[in-house]
Amino acid sequence: MEKTLNIPDTKEPRVVIVGGGFGGVSIAKELVERNDFQIVLLDRQNYHTFQPLLYQVSTSSLEPESIAYPLRKIVKKGKNTFFRMANVLNVNTDSKEVETNIGTITYDYLVIATGARTNFFGNRTIEQNAMRMKSVPQALKLRSLMLENLEQAVITPDREKRKELLNFVIVGAGPTGVELAGGLAEMRSGVLPRDYPDMDFREMRIHIIESADRVLPPMSPKASENAEKFLRKLGVEIHLNTMVTNYEDNIVATNTDLELQSATFVWSAGVTGSPLPGFTEEAVIPRANRYKVNEFNQVESFDDVFAIGDIALMKTEDYERGHPMVAQPAIQQGKHLAKNLLAKHNGKAMKPFKYFDKGSMATIGRNKAVVDIGKLKFGGFLAWFVWMFIHLIFLVGFRNKIITLFNWVYSYINFDKASRLIITPFKAKEYKNVV
Amino acid sequence: MEKTLNIPDTKEPRVVIVGGGFGGVSIAKELVERNDFQIVLLDRQNYHTFQPLLYQVSTSSLEPESIAYPLRKIVKKGKNTFFRMANVLNVNTDSKEVETNIGTITYDYLVIATGARTNFFGNRTIEQNAMRMKSVPQALKLRSLMLENLEQAVITPDREKRKELLNFVIVGAGPTGVELAGGLAEMRSGVLPRDYPDMDFREMRIHIIESADRVLPPMSPKASENAEKFLRKLGVEIHLNTMVTNYEDNIVATNTDLELQSATFVWSAGVTGSPLPGFTEEAVIPRANRYKVNEFNQVESFDDVFAIGDIALMKTEDYERGHPMVAQPAIQQGKHLAKNLLAKHNGKAMKPFKYFDKGSMATIGRNKAVVDIGKLKFGGFLAWFVWMFIHLIFLVGFRNKIITLFNWVYSYINFDKASRLIITPFKAKEYKNVV
Repeated sequence: MEKTLNIPDTKEPRVVIVGGGFGGVSIAKELVERNDFQIVLLDRQNYHTFQPLLYQVSTSSLEPESIAYPLRKIVKKGKNTFFRMANVLNVNTDSKEVETNIGTITYDYLVIATGARTNFFGNRTIEQNAMRMKSVPQALKLRSLMLENLEQAVITPDREKRKELLNFVIVGAGPTGVELAGGLAEMRSGVLPRDYPDMDFREMRIHIIESADRVLPPMSPKASENAEKFLRKLGVEIHLNTMVTNYEDNIVATNTDLELQSATFVWSAGVTGSPLPGFTEEAVIPRANRYKVNEFNQVESFDDVFAIGDIALMKTEDYERGHPMVAQPAIQQGKHLAKNLLAKHNGKAMKPFKYFDKGSMATIGRNKAVVDIGKLKFGGFLAWFVWMFIHLIFLVGFRNKIITLFNWVYSYINFDKASRLIITPFKAKEYKNVV
Repeated sequence: MEKTLNIPDTKEPRVVIVGGGFGGVSIAKELVERNDFQIVLLDRQNYHTFQPLLYQVSTSSLEPESIAYPLRKIVKKGKNTFFRMANVLNVNTDSKEVETNIGTITYDYLVIATGARTNFFGNRTIEQNAMRMKSVPQALKLRSLMLENLEQAVITPDREKRKELLNFVIVGAGPTGVELAGGLAEMRSGVLPRDYPDMDFREMRIHIIESADRVLPPMSPKASENAEKFLRKLGVEIHLNTMVTNYEDNIVATNTDLELQSATFVWSAGVTGSPLPGFTEEAVIPRANRYKVNEFNQVESFDDVFAIGDIALMKTEDYERGHPMVAQPAIQQGKHLAKNLLAKHNGKAMKPFKYFDKGSMATIGRNKAVVDIGKLKFGGFLAWFVWMFIHLIFLVGFRNKIITLFNWVYSYINFDKASRLIITPFKAKEYKNVV
């Protein structure tokens, strides 16, 4: 049978958007209710993932349904808009075609918003053995593995073996690593001792290993200082200036004399772009794996191919190495590109993108966070409150906001994590390569 | 390494409870806060499942976290109580030992509360190919399969193939089958046409096949009549007096001239007990696979082995074939056995169990349900309201009640199903034998 995306040809130019992350959803939202284009949104999943809260799925605070949002619900607002669940296999820029596992589709404009994936810097052993946290299934797998290891620890009389099960090692002290460490430390102090009264939780240790000389390297030194203080207070063991070189047979090797035994090893040490096949080195910058785009988000040497968000590397005076690979540039570029496509379509000039830095933040367990907004840098309870407020505002969907808020209030009052359930059909260890 | 459950011997007699369903949780709750016994609760999962609402997980109404409850949270209330995640492999009643995959433990009293599993009546082909709905992973798998088949249908131009993808066949018109059919019909009328504007939902058909001459055979004829009326109004196609004989290559064969092509085939035609290995035919009734118990829930020919809930067959004057295999007998027997164990322990006489029939009910989509309470039999909006109220009351955990209530109110107002997410790491079709 011939494979087809089954999308009708209409007189409006077709915009194919690849990826339903922050960037893809942002441009789709702007364009769907207008009739200037036919919009085709492609994604491997049928939902948008609010990645900043994935660590809360891993640490049993939130159910995945609270941070995911059906992509069809975004797309259905338009009359000439389509969603298809598909893996893109190749782009043919000559014939203006996108090849996917469910068929081939032509485009008038292509918007690449494929985001980033975990960067293992070429280390295949670590890639095979580490847990990652860039998608809902990955976060759920990590949640299950942690809980399985705790269940295993409680029936392990051998002290060394038990320590291995209770050693949690996180590589990379960016926001993801720091927030995960904070969430885990919170579980250790609040939830787990009551769940496992016959276990000594002094044996449970949380390590965070960072190659830079401070935690949260992308943030201000003040934020780093505060975050480190908060983490240490929670009993997280911080190893700076340390690079992990291997993880095999539950042994973590580093370039210093630090060696750890650990059954739960999470890699959040970096991300790299996930570009689509079919582009030359001119368009996709090697190593960075990001598309070289101009100030209109046009991919180098193309007029009709655009890239936004993590996958786009736009060099500007203020951002010589491109914008940070976080949600805000993706959201802003998506919105901006929507306007530019409309301008282009109407024969008007496109306007260059300008990034408005709304600041950055990270939370470290209960009551504590660090916030950098321009010159304003603060930490503690107020920062934590701001962190919660901002995340609720940006979470997609009214229902998700309410359920997340309720979960947070409930957990806060009860020192509880309601989602500590191992709901995978197999043992977490047994299924590999979860995308 | 020697396997051990790592549970200390204390002077209190040890009660080992196998299974954290309604029965196991009910007796555990009664006993944990007292110091008369040491309580050891075993389950394959680390959570209790509220099975009556599993169909709402399958039909994208509820997240699994709302109907599951961590077993450790129940057990932790006691000082001499333990939970272990374990599969029981065998019971040695001579040495009073339970063998599990994590080691062997002795008991003074054994309480078997292993519940029931799907009954395929020996048909291996159906067993291999059908979806079932007795556990959270199974319900999630069904949810994913339904959504995957819808995504596939939208890109399938071939009409026959598309009809196969849009034909939903449910075997068995007990409460599970009827509620699932109602939930699906509700999705078809409310949610899906907006999600898939380019699909003709007259092509989506929902069939329910029942071997008896009415739907809801365990309920009153009036309930059956009402339920059938409600189902037909929702456009569910009901095939009575029909037995499914095979399901292979997406073809459903029956003992009549009915033959259906379907990619989504759910088997809810019956349950059978899941007894533990190690008992003779005297204790476990063949075919029924349930323990023969006396009025004290003592397993035939044992003084110290008890069975409660679905797995127990207690013949009484009013219930010659045992109690119905639903939540209430399990809950009541659990509570009652707790008292009897205490009595026995204190040298007093045990009291016979008396089942108090609180009635039965089933909901059929929005605003409609049927209720039988003693001689009172009614259907419609009031019944639906009663159904919701009762389910919320019995749902374990305050948080679960609130989130479920919010989800219901939200869905009701918005004609929406928020959890329509395919979050399995693999394609649903590709992983088999989900327990």
